Amino acid sequence: MAVWLFDVNDLKILPYKLLDLGPCDVRVRMKAVGICESDVHYLKIMSCRHYVVREPMVIGHECAGIIEDVGTEVTSLVPGDRVALEPGHGCWRCDRCKEGLYNLCPEMKFFATPPIHGSLANQIVHPADLCFKLPDNVSLEEGAMCEPLSVGVYACRRAQVGPETNVLVIGAGPIGLVSLLAARAFGAPRIVVVDVDDYRLSVAKQFGAFDTVKVSSNIEDVKKEVEIVQKAMGGVGTDVTLDCVGFNKTMTTALSATRNGGKVCLVGMGHCGMTVPLTPAASREVDILGVFRYKNTWPQCIEFLSSGKIDVKPLITHRYGFSQKEVEEAFETSARGSNAIKVMFNL
Amino acid sequence: MAVWLFDVNDLKILPYKLLDLGPCDVRVRMKAVGICESDVHYLKIMSCRHYVVREPMVIGHECAGIIEDVGTEVTSLVPGDRVALEPGHGCWRCDRCKEGLYNLCPEMKFFATPPIHGSLANQIVHPADLCFKLPDNVSLEEGAMCEPLSVGVYACRRAQVGPETNVLVIGAGPIGLVSLLAARAFGAPRIVVVDVDDYRLSVAKQFGAFDTVKVSSNIEDVKKEVEIVQKAMGGVGTDVTLDCVGFNKTMTTALSATRNGGKVCLVGMGHCGMTVPLTPAASREVDILGVFRYKNTWPQCIEFLSSGKIDVKPLITHRYGFSQKEVEEAFETSARGSNAIKVMFNL
Amino acid sequence: MAVWLFDVNDLKILPYKLLDLGPCDVRVRMKAVGICESDVHYLKIMSCRHYVVREPMVIGHECAGIIEDVGTEVTSLVPGDRVALEPGHGCWRCDRCKEGLYNLCPEMKFFATPPIHGSLANQIVHPADLCFKLPDNVSLEEGAMCEPLSVGVYACRRAQVGPETNVLVIGAGPIGLVSLLAARAFGAPRIVVVDVDDYRLSVAKQFGAFDTVKVSSNIEDVKKEVEIVQKAMGGVGTDVTLDCVGFNKTMTTALSATRNGGKVCLVGMGHCGMTVPLTPAASREVDILGVFRYKNTWPQCIEFLSSGKIDVKPLITHRYGFSQKEVEEAFETSARGSNAIKVMFNL
Amino acid sequence: MAVWLFDVNDLKILPYKLLDLGPCDVRVRMKAVGICESDVHYLKIMSCRHYVVREPMVIGHECAGIIEDVGTEVTSLVPGDRVALEPGHGCWRCDRCKEGLYNLCPEMKFFATPPIHGSLANQIVHPADLCFKLPDNVSLEEGAMCEPLSVGVYACRRAQVGPETNVLVIGAGPIGLVSLLAARAFGAPRIVVVDVDDYRLSVAKQFGAFDTVKVSSNIEDVKKEVEIVQKAMGGVGTDVTLDCVGFNKTMTTALSATRNGGKVCLVGMGHCGMTVPLTPAASREVDILGVFRYKNTWPQCIEFLSSGKIDVKPLITHRYGFSQKEVEEAFETSARGSNAIKVMFNL
Repeated sequence: MAVWLFDVNDLKILPYKLLDLGPCDVRVRMKAVGICESDVHYLKIMSCRHYVVREPMVIGHECAGIIEDVGTEVTSLVPGDRVALEPGHGCWRCDRCKEGLYNLCPEMKFFATPPIHGSLANQIVHPADLCFKLPDNVSLEEGAMCEPLSVGVYACRRAQVGPETNVLVIGAGPIGLVSLLAARAFGAPRIVVVDVDDYRLSVAKQFGAFDTVKVSSNIEDVKKEVEIVQKAMGGVGTDVTLDCVGFNKTMTTALSATRNGGKVCLVGMGHCGMTVPLTPAASREVDILGVFRYKNTWPQCIEFLSSGKIDVKPLITHRYGFSQKEVEEAFETSARGSNAIKVMFNL
Repeated sequence: MAVWLFDVNDLKILPYKLLDLGPCDVRVRMKAVGICESDVHYLKIMSCRHYVVREPMVIGHECAGIIEDVGTEVTSLVPGDRVALEPGHGCWRCDRCKEGLYNLCPEMKFFATPPIHGSLANQIVHPADLCFKLPDNVSLEEGAMCEPLSVGVYACRRAQVGPETNVLVIGAGPIGLVSLLAARAFGAPRIVVVDVDDYRLSVAKQFGAFDTVKVSSNIEDVKKEVEIVQKAMGGVGTDVTLDCVGFNKTMTTALSATRNGGKVCLVGMGHCGMTVPLTPAASREVDILGVFRYKNTWPQCIEFLSSGKIDVKPLITHRYGFSQKEVEEAFETSARGSNAIKVMFNL
Repeated sequence: MAVWLFDVNDLKILPYKLLDLGPCDVRVRMKAVGICESDVHYLKIMSCRHYVVREPMVIGHECAGIIEDVGTEVTSLVPGDRVALEPGHGCWRCDRCKEGLYNLCPEMKFFATPPIHGSLANQIVHPADLCFKLPDNVSLEEGAMCEPLSVGVYACRRAQVGPETNVLVIGAGPIGLVSLLAARAFGAPRIVVVDVDDYRLSVAKQFGAFDTVKVSSNIEDVKKEVEIVQKAMGGVGTDVTLDCVGFNKTMTTALSATRNGGKVCLVGMGHCGMTVPLTPAASREVDILGVFRYKNTWPQCIEFLSSGKIDVKPLITHRYGFSQKEVEEAFETSARGSNAIKVMFNL
Repeated sequence: MAVWLFDVNDLKILPYKLLDLGPCDVRVRMKAVGICESDVHYLKIMSCRHYVVREPMVIGHECAGIIEDVGTEVTSLVPGDRVALEPGHGCWRCDRCKEGLYNLCPEMKFFATPPIHGSLANQIVHPADLCFKLPDNVSLEEGAMCEPLSVGVYACRRAQVGPETNVLVIGAGPIGLVSLLAARAFGAPRIVVVDVDDYRLSVAKQFGAFDTVKVSSNIEDVKKEVEIVQKAMGGVGTDVTLDCVGFNKTMTTALSATRNGGKVCLVGMGHCGMTVPLTPAASREVDILGVFRYKNTWPQCIEFLSSGKIDVKPLITHRYGFSQKEVEEAFETSARGSNAIKVMFNL
């Protein structure tokens, strides 16, 4: 059984034919699947970025489960192992894959990205090398959280966040929060978080922000807000800004607040075309780095969770079972946002 | 004597008091000084970027000359040496300087950047370590050309142009041409140049462009033009784009034409705020790198000139002497642009 | 038919059963196969490094040929295409492969590395993504030369050789010569080559060395020889040394001759344990970089050959046909070394 | 007054004439000065590496104090500020300095490196930009510890230690311990420390080693010990090894224990020439990185101390006052080693 997306707001639990178990594959009994903003996008408008759902598709891609069976060549896993699943893999034949940039592979196959089915299902067949064994002290729900956490980890890697990097995180939604958690785990001494919402900022403060700043959505306020951010940073320069929103306003803040020679990483993708002060930033060598999903992040995420450097459990605010009614409710809760951070299915 | 800028369109040759010769300084008899677009900006509007001329200022910064005297601690140069001058130096006390990013030093002192005087003068006192000896086969005019060439060399360095990098150069003005020359010298196998002007494209072709594409200034044409560029590139991806113009249209082309995981270097600074498709580029990890002037480029430029890998002589289209009348004419020629690439004074 | 290695000095042309043509494979009619020093090692002692031939093995791995058939999913090649073959591929499931370091994959399968068969055969089945189409102006023999050339290209990449890098190449054997050619193509302004043999040095000079220095094999001479090398370099520092020999003497020279903060790349593997002045080099931050084969080099090699930046034809000093007698003669010629650089089979 | 080194084992407290206070200098009242192994070297054999004491020299370079006076251009510090002193500075005119590698400047001037005097004195005049203000929660003794800690911090930076790097530290002496502390602060998930001494290993364990392994000084034992280290690492590969000893045995272990594509950083400088298995390591692309002192580390060290990520106080095992008798005793204590880690003067 799996959750199929048929049309706008039309999800149904129906049978799902498993892929054949290849020699390097495993079959996984799904136990925990989270709802991502992109899942909600598909549900609401049948598309996300340039991907369009044209045929019924199983949804879901943040997941963990228990190994039920392994292919003939699999030696790294045995039935009963608890694993977190990385949702996508490249073709391993193109230039990008061979260079180690498999997330940029044009032939990438990724859960719940049309026409590939997702993982909100009782069972899934998946390549063994994309299933990462969880240590005893990491739960299956935490395993499923490796997916959103990977976004933050990868953004920090691209921006080379470390113990010498003071970080500004723009936006305290789910992506902003995992970016904050990741930046802390990478050792950033000071992380200031800005958002328009008091509740979200209070959550960011609980999650270890050095300071938080409430901002407006009015682009006229950028100059003044940048000064407030600099004060919140304690007078040191902002080495890296992670824009987890991606609006004209937020990128304008990002480009203005980052120090000469610093980096802005565009993580959120709110606006498509943007009107931003690109030239003044470029003439201070503030580079703009993009991110697309992540690569090679699961081992790092599991290490962060296992060592306690990151605790994702408080991010899981709602839990649902695997019935038609609960599925519908869960997606509605996630879509409403408000005080829901992460909505999780327990299968 | 030096060329002083007093007001808009008001340049005068008047006496200039030399700085004292410090122990690590040299006195240089200027022989060749080129006119840069920024010099013309100052002449026409008394400002360039955020720098404003508030008091009379000696203009000029692309220069070479002959050592006349050396400070007590200078061992690398002797009177009679022919040298090219790097125009600026950092404070060597701030974080950026100590990291090797002296071009980003907030205390940078740079010829003809207010309130620092320039070098269009008979004599100049300058730190010895910024005066680079020219080999016999590099002329003083070529020495003065190290300054504009440095812009291209530094852009190529930032974008890591090499024998594996297919490059798109946007704009075939002076900066576009030095970027083309530098990219060739760094080994780029294919360099396609686009511009709106047939004459400029014909020059780019002579300077070694793999192919050239005439484009419009209409942003609606980007999609079609990107396809033409890709064809001109022979079907391989564009690894690096050097936008030597810096308009909404050109950055839109740059972000659209560059392959997944490639780099765009914003060299020209035409528009300040920009409206560009930032998010689609970021989600393909097309990074945007800024450049501010250059650093540590003179030895490389001299090597390129001496070895013949780069020939800048054809860039020098006009020459003038050092009289009041010729100075005025020279700046007018440079300001008119049209078929002038580089206007050079011989002192 | 293929050339099988049965025992020391025992090579026989015997039938060879082709692998099945998988959906992503191609069948190649071999046309040009070169003899590598490692092939000679296997012939003479049945081993190379830690690889030991325990069962009869087809030998050979420097090769090019013509596509005869393609698997069902192959779209990049058609029968009749002339291709150069990259000999090895990783598992694409381990950490190293996913990071883009597939040459370090512990499961690497590589032509003529036990227990994998080589490519000195009439026909071979090989993954299509490891067969690189040759442009019309690159011959099949040149295609086969992409393999040794890849060693030089990869060494230059690891050492970041470019137009700002003065290079010392130690050893003017086949690997030294391809490293010299690659360093020139990467733009190194000055390349000094040292060897103990006058003839080899004269070849290096013809291949574009800036200067050559004859050295001894006596480690006592290092200090004096380093001074001579520095003079040959024209007084500038040696930024990168490529040791293409790998003896105590040569690494001592490499570590001594390289400037503060420079790099030594250990390409040749003559001695295993080494006695070298590691600490003085480390305290000048002269880093030592290893290389294992290469990765992602074929497109670059083909570009160098096609553009004329590198001409490998003079390296091919001997040619043989595909008969039992000629095979034996060819390997003897290669083993004798002396004035043979590259021995090539034309099948 | 200052501690002058006159001859082997001949230290005397005698008057010391301060340098003139330049416009960018400060005068510091010294409060805490630690004894470094190099100080002991000078005392015992009048030399360290290639530096030889030829004239009486003030000794000491690990120090912190209180600002007494500032030069006319100093704006960052005022009298009364508590500061830690970076002991050396480059010429800021050579290529290395301009590239940001000032620690490799051939003209480097560094406390207690002949012929430059050291800082074990009541007062010192020093460039203001090398005096780093301590926050209230960092003591002057901790400030003096920034110097040895910088060695560990810089080694971790060169080896790119981070939350994805499992580290082997060889040697649990003062340098091994600061490297362990730094590696933890950079986020290394697992740090295994090896030494020949049980007491030192117990200290390493207290300082946060993931595990410790007692090893022999017999090079024959390397293979077996590497297996034990791998087990101690919990089965994951060793990404980086910091050899804080620098003997044939330790580098052999380092090169053997580090995974394919990993890095060995040679921090300790025990042996000069070394006999090590360089080729097998190079053929697995285990790179060897040298370190010379450090650069730009003080702000990072102060941040680690202030945030509590590193606690150096337990390293200070002995304290002495500034009398002739105590100076002699302090150096004897440091020279004896045994259970002394860091010996500190309080002036």
